[in-house]
Amino acid sequence: MMEKFDSIKARYTSGEVKSQNLETVIFTEVYGSDPLMVKEACNDAAKIRCELIEGATGVSLTQIKTTRIDNCKLTAEWKILPGIEGKIGSAIIPLGVAGPMKINGQYINEKVYIPLATNEAALVAGVQRGIKAINMSGGLNTLVHFDGMSRAPLIEAPSIAKAHEFINRIKADQSIIEQLKKLCIDPFVKLEKIDPYQLGTKVFLRMIFKTGDAMGMNGVTKASADIVRFILTVMPDWKLITISSNLCTDKKSAHINVLNGRGKSVQTEVFIPEKVLGAVFKKGVNSRSVEKTVFHKCYLGSCYSGTIAGFNVNAANAIAAFYAATGQDLAHVVSSSSCFVQADAKDDGVHFMVSLPCLELATVGGGTGFGTAKEALDLIGCGGYGNSVDDNKNVLRLAEIAAAVVTALDLNTACSQASGYEMADSHVKLARGE
Amino acid sequence: MMEKFDSIKARYTSGEVKSQNLETVIFTEVYGSDPLMVKEACNDAAKIRCELIEGATGVSLTQIKTTRIDNCKLTAEWKILPGIEGKIGSAIIPLGVAGPMKINGQYINEKVYIPLATNEAALVAGVQRGIKAINMSGGLNTLVHFDGMSRAPLIEAPSIAKAHEFINRIKADQSIIEQLKKLCIDPFVKLEKIDPYQLGTKVFLRMIFKTGDAMGMNGVTKASADIVRFILTVMPDWKLITISSNLCTDKKSAHINVLNGRGKSVQTEVFIPEKVLGAVFKKGVNSRSVEKTVFHKCYLGSCYSGTIAGFNVNAANAIAAFYAATGQDLAHVVSSSSCFVQADAKDDGVHFMVSLPCLELATVGGGTGFGTAKEALDLIGCGGYGNSVDDNKNVLRLAEIAAAVVTALDLNTACSQASGYEMADSHVKLARGE
Amino acid sequence: MMEKFDSIKARYTSGEVKSQNLETVIFTEVYGSDPLMVKEACNDAAKIRCELIEGATGVSLTQIKTTRIDNCKLTAEWKILPGIEGKIGSAIIPLGVAGPMKINGQYINEKVYIPLATNEAALVAGVQRGIKAINMSGGLNTLVHFDGMSRAPLIEAPSIAKAHEFINRIKADQSIIEQLKKLCIDPFVKLEKIDPYQLGTKVFLRMIFKTGDAMGMNGVTKASADIVRFILTVMPDWKLITISSNLCTDKKSAHINVLNGRGKSVQTEVFIPEKVLGAVFKKGVNSRSVEKTVFHKCYLGSCYSGTIAGFNVNAANAIAAFYAATGQDLAHVVSSSSCFVQADAKDDGVHFMVSLPCLELATVGGGTGFGTAKEALDLIGCGGYGNSVDDNKNVLRLAEIAAAVVTALDLNTACSQASGYEMADSHVKLARGE
Amino acid sequence: MMEKFDSIKARYTSGEVKSQNLETVIFTEVYGSDPLMVKEACNDAAKIRCELIEGATGVSLTQIKTTRIDNCKLTAEWKILPGIEGKIGSAIIPLGVAGPMKINGQYINEKVYIPLATNEAALVAGVQRGIKAINMSGGLNTLVHFDGMSRAPLIEAPSIAKAHEFINRIKADQSIIEQLKKLCIDPFVKLEKIDPYQLGTKVFLRMIFKTGDAMGMNGVTKASADIVRFILTVMPDWKLITISSNLCTDKKSAHINVLNGRGKSVQTEVFIPEKVLGAVFKKGVNSRSVEKTVFHKCYLGSCYSGTIAGFNVNAANAIAAFYAATGQDLAHVVSSSSCFVQADAKDDGVHFMVSLPCLELATVGGGTGFGTAKEALDLIGCGGYGNSVDDNKNVLRLAEIAAAVVTALDLNTACSQASGYEMADSHVKLARGE
Repeated sequence: MMEKFDSIKARYTSGEVKSQNLETVIFTEVYGSDPLMVKEACNDAAKIRCELIEGATGVSLTQIKTTRIDNCKLTAEWKILPGIEGKIGSAIIPLGVAGPMKINGQYINEKVYIPLATNEAALVAGVQRGIKAINMSGGLNTLVHFDGMSRAPLIEAPSIAKAHEFINRIKADQSIIEQLKKLCIDPFVKLEKIDPYQLGTKVFLRMIFKTGDAMGMNGVTKASADIVRFILTVMPDWKLITISSNLCTDKKSAHINVLNGRGKSVQTEVFIPEKVLGAVFKKGVNSRSVEKTVFHKCYLGSCYSGTIAGFNVNAANAIAAFYAATGQDLAHVVSSSSCFVQADAKDDGVHFMVSLPCLELATVGGGTGFGTAKEALDLIGCGGYGNSVDDNKNVLRLAEIAAAVVTALDLNTACSQASGYEMADSHVKLARGE
Repeated sequence: MMEKFDSIKARYTSGEVKSQNLETVIFTEVYGSDPLMVKEACNDAAKIRCELIEGATGVSLTQIKTTRIDNCKLTAEWKILPGIEGKIGSAIIPLGVAGPMKINGQYINEKVYIPLATNEAALVAGVQRGIKAINMSGGLNTLVHFDGMSRAPLIEAPSIAKAHEFINRIKADQSIIEQLKKLCIDPFVKLEKIDPYQLGTKVFLRMIFKTGDAMGMNGVTKASADIVRFILTVMPDWKLITISSNLCTDKKSAHINVLNGRGKSVQTEVFIPEKVLGAVFKKGVNSRSVEKTVFHKCYLGSCYSGTIAGFNVNAANAIAAFYAATGQDLAHVVSSSSCFVQADAKDDGVHFMVSLPCLELATVGGGTGFGTAKEALDLIGCGGYGNSVDDNKNVLRLAEIAAAVVTALDLNTACSQASGYEMADSHVKLARGE
Repeated sequence: MMEKFDSIKARYTSGEVKSQNLETVIFTEVYGSDPLMVKEACNDAAKIRCELIEGATGVSLTQIKTTRIDNCKLTAEWKILPGIEGKIGSAIIPLGVAGPMKINGQYINEKVYIPLATNEAALVAGVQRGIKAINMSGGLNTLVHFDGMSRAPLIEAPSIAKAHEFINRIKADQSIIEQLKKLCIDPFVKLEKIDPYQLGTKVFLRMIFKTGDAMGMNGVTKASADIVRFILTVMPDWKLITISSNLCTDKKSAHINVLNGRGKSVQTEVFIPEKVLGAVFKKGVNSRSVEKTVFHKCYLGSCYSGTIAGFNVNAANAIAAFYAATGQDLAHVVSSSSCFVQADAKDDGVHFMVSLPCLELATVGGGTGFGTAKEALDLIGCGGYGNSVDDNKNVLRLAEIAAAVVTALDLNTACSQASGYEMADSHVKLARGE
Repeated sequence: MMEKFDSIKARYTSGEVKSQNLETVIFTEVYGSDPLMVKEACNDAAKIRCELIEGATGVSLTQIKTTRIDNCKLTAEWKILPGIEGKIGSAIIPLGVAGPMKINGQYINEKVYIPLATNEAALVAGVQRGIKAINMSGGLNTLVHFDGMSRAPLIEAPSIAKAHEFINRIKADQSIIEQLKKLCIDPFVKLEKIDPYQLGTKVFLRMIFKTGDAMGMNGVTKASADIVRFILTVMPDWKLITISSNLCTDKKSAHINVLNGRGKSVQTEVFIPEKVLGAVFKKGVNSRSVEKTVFHKCYLGSCYSGTIAGFNVNAANAIAAFYAATGQDLAHVVSSSSCFVQADAKDDGVHFMVSLPCLELATVGGGTGFGTAKEALDLIGCGGYGNSVDDNKNVLRLAEIAAAVVTALDLNTACSQASGYEMADSHVKLARGE
């Protein structure tokens, strides 16, 4: 067996075996295509890649070699898909837990532990303190008010008049949408509507889909391509410019997502009585000081900075840690952290609210189905997926929990800043052990 | 020893031992404060937390329990800092490698392998194809043209006139900056300048620091707080509003970072001859089609979407994968992925350029010093840190490599979209094994 | 009669007669409430105000005193409404004419002269040269693809759940809109739809109305107020926050207007053959150089500047001059000049396109019904108004002409900049007579 | 003489005499080049143009023909420059006056009348009520904290390294600026500094000039062109892309102007005691209700709308009316109305503040030197200009007054909206006489 490995390694080093075939070659030659050995073959390939790199660079990858992640699968043609290409193992990120947190939502009405993967000291502790105040106030109300994944191909009409005419038809004739719906052959991708936009002869077709418990980008990209192919067949004087026009908008901070939603849009609220503020946070924290801090930081400062949706304290920290823990696409932190925070001082407390217009997340697909992410999703009761595209309670529950994490952290950090210098002091302490 | 564990676990479950003390209690009681057992104690604590949660929820955390991450340390008071609070293990993310890529930069002039942690199929392959075209074109030119971490406290003057007067003094009198510099006692945090901004009586002091090879947020937050404390001592009729006003701007997409820079600002360029485009990419890809795709997607579409700095194809994918692999703060993906791409069609090829104004990254601190991230940094020749705040070649090299990864991926995806439907087809294929 | 004037003037100076009653007092006391003398009384009042100010300040208002503007009217209670309060005469702005320009639109298919009021030398000449190129290319195609005026009151729900529930009802139940429609008693204000938006408990009701040939702000403000009053009557636990929430968005540059339209949305296009470019513009101007100039100036530069809808060369110049000539609300220049310009280089010319998403304009109301503005509107065939709210051909034609003016000027200035230094040279020459 | 006119008219109609020569032909042929008859010739030309248009269109321009505006001048070559091209007379806009208002500024410390040209009923009355509250509170504090006009040519370097190198030299070597300064031969245009920005090989040179009492666009455009011409002479491998890159940013709403200032940046503040609010405004108006209205409308609503600098109530109304009255460039309303309003509720009143970062205005040049605008400028003590580029007290005073007008109107409208439905009611009443 070692001989076989050595042979494969030599051929891989010489370029005879290509990186994208390495898993399958090992699987075939070493393990005789035994389906039980798929994961082993994949792991072996990772190690061989590591060794090649170690040899080439002289850098030791000792820890990476010890990691493994079993996200490979066997195709119908008995090839191995390793999950990602060029896999050498896995990256590990510290994982902590906060909570349990009381959430009163549409898809959750209980206390849950919150898994958070982060390298930032003080983050889990911050979420924990926010949870404390929220739990003492009866828990957090949450609701999801939009659910849809978008892709916006861009096509070019022969004239502005033709562009206008086509857009009018799409808007007026529901039967077109029904017809296009049928082009989506994936049962977990359902076209909901098309919002057309015109700039000159250029027509942006922002298509909104339901995608079950999946985040859905791959599915909607394929469906969008199929729809556009069909449209261009029946309108041969039009041209494809791009399958994805950035009006989608994927993985960029964009106002269209804020206004129209993308993924899930979630609202949260909690009324924190004055005495809870006093009990949980430092001196100087009261409903009025929190309101003032939120106004000056999240609005006056953010407006001056020129932001699109950064009207919050530190939503991205919460989103990044929760996404890393639960196997989400980390590039989605960009738009998913779009967030408005409000803190309305009332007579006897602060009405604290968070709006997250474009949370892009999943409980199936990508990194959600295996490893620590799968367990993290199970932990919060979101593992797995529904039986149909419309049965997506798991991901809706996940969205409510994600919003809850943001609320807990932003409440805590707003209060921390309302008290003066605490933020500077506490972060450094926790990070450095001073 | 099991008895001791059982006792601690029981006391932890009952709340007698608090979560933040769990590591230290185990270290003291089980290991007799043996410094060699710090990591073990930390690992034991993670497992005990897992078990408690498993008991409370009925969810099995089998894989999480097998993970460990040795980012703890012992304080001078013989307490254990676990790295992050409530640690239960680690999250694992698939790690792949692309390259080697030829980079002609200021701090790198060689071929490097690119580690990428992602759950997205097709990403590593995409980077790889971009690298192929770049290497065939002689490699990528890169340079860093800004280096500074910012924090912007917000203080309130008694009147607009007093605010104006103070700002004028800060601008005109360099000795004030010199005086404030001395308040930064951390040798790896050096105040460079203060950009003051006024809205009514509110004065935003956007302070720019050098922070060596560290990303620097903790250091500059502490230094900013010390500076503000001093200022408010000498100007007692002024008030602190917040240590961090969102004009910093940290972890939000903000135009001030795009204009003025934050972290590192990097430029890249490569001229891809027409024949390389033809050899590496699909039919239909040429300098003019790439230029048109980039204009329509990255400018016309992005402008219409209402973005701040999303003038690129998919920079966030590259940043997220590279940051996850190298232990960066994942919330920084938000602003670090601010990016302008240009593709100028020339007579015989395309001049492809990428501008990244605000890369926030580090080779020391946070998640960079241990585990797989440390090895990934070593792999690219960026591990560790310099001897002084001004000796930060490692992080500058890291910034050039990060920009190179973005360039490779954006070049590839731009070309993919320029060819028609390839993006839709290839992603789905790689993701699903179709 | 002079005695009467002197008496009134004395009482006005002493404060006994208030400024807002001055017209009516003169009308009554001097002219015995003769309906034929309304305008005279109004003019007299303006002069008396001038004289008082001249006396108070020592500044001579000789020319202002010679101006007059007959925009007053007599109310049913025989009081005079002077048009605006504190009227002292009129401001005069130089008025030029360009054209005639060939426009092939939906509401215009002929050549029209373009009236432009401006103090900027070179502007009319610039429009004229743009028209020349357009006319030589067969005229400009135009179309209007949105027509609706918006106002967005902001109300507060008792909870996020109540807010969500109400929004769902508005979206789902068309009968609510029908019911609310009936609250619009003004026959020239018709509710089309309500787009609701939620941030926490705050509900923004962005209401879209048809307003005939009027710009419509006053009408929709009143209608919105009536609708909100009704809603708050039936939902007494809700509160009014503001009648106008800035999500309207009126007179601010805002992306929501760009995406959803406000007033009229207009597209234009013209294909300028290479030989026309060569004949009309300077050396160096060709389809490719125009495309490059437009990309670099209107996209790369504008994106870097952090703009919302400034993706054009100088749309605001055209809008301001045309609005001042035709009696529009000049504060509407802000959002009405939101504009995307495209210049696609083709084999034998440039496809030049302009998109104006939010032109707010009128042919009735405000400054449109009298004086030079009325004649300017007549000149372009847009004077007066239709018989019903749906009969608004005049204002739609006006919108097409406004877009044509922008196109002519932007084409000219793009070509001017594509040729090198011409802009700098020509402006100064025309402005200074060098 | 009539014969001469008829002859010229006939030749003009036939195209023999071109529009741009009409004034000079009349001046020469009819008036024998008598310098006293320049204005008459210009007026005659306007009438002839009117008559031609009337003949061609059948539309009567009776009122336009009666207007005249004497902004023409005779060149050294004895040609007439009519001010603007194709002049047919003038547009008239109703002119009202508010005040006098007490302003405590740097360049004004007295009460002034405010001239406002507008077609909007209720605007002058609104300013008047705002003034009332401000005067009762001791007047408005104002200050100017930036003064500089910008133009940003865009040039292209042969490589990113060359671009970077040049930018570094400009930043580091003050002698370059000194050298370039000498290229500005106009004594009223003085280069202050150059802010360079890099995107790939593209270098934006944002040049800031002092321009005396002039708004300065023409002067700085010429100076920028001269500077760029020089730079390209000494760096022949660089290319001019455009003289004006939209990073200037002229006449578009852009964040760079908000952050860095353009024209003049002005701050205002007034503390309105609770009892003044009660005395001047309607029931329900108090410091807290004004603060809440400003937060919800100017921040929450504006942020949601996706604005760049629309954080105000209705600044554009004030700017447009004041600019139309005083002969400013009306296209500058776009960026000049960029505005942040703050209303901080204090124990016994509201601290009301306005920040206007980019007021572009003048007391010399353009429309400021003649007609009603000249008198309006004289009325407020701003007519004419200083002896040198650094002596610009007139325009700085004008900027303070402009900011005062915005403050008065925004205060009034904020209070109007804080009281409930007043805005809807009052506007309609004043506009319609109901």
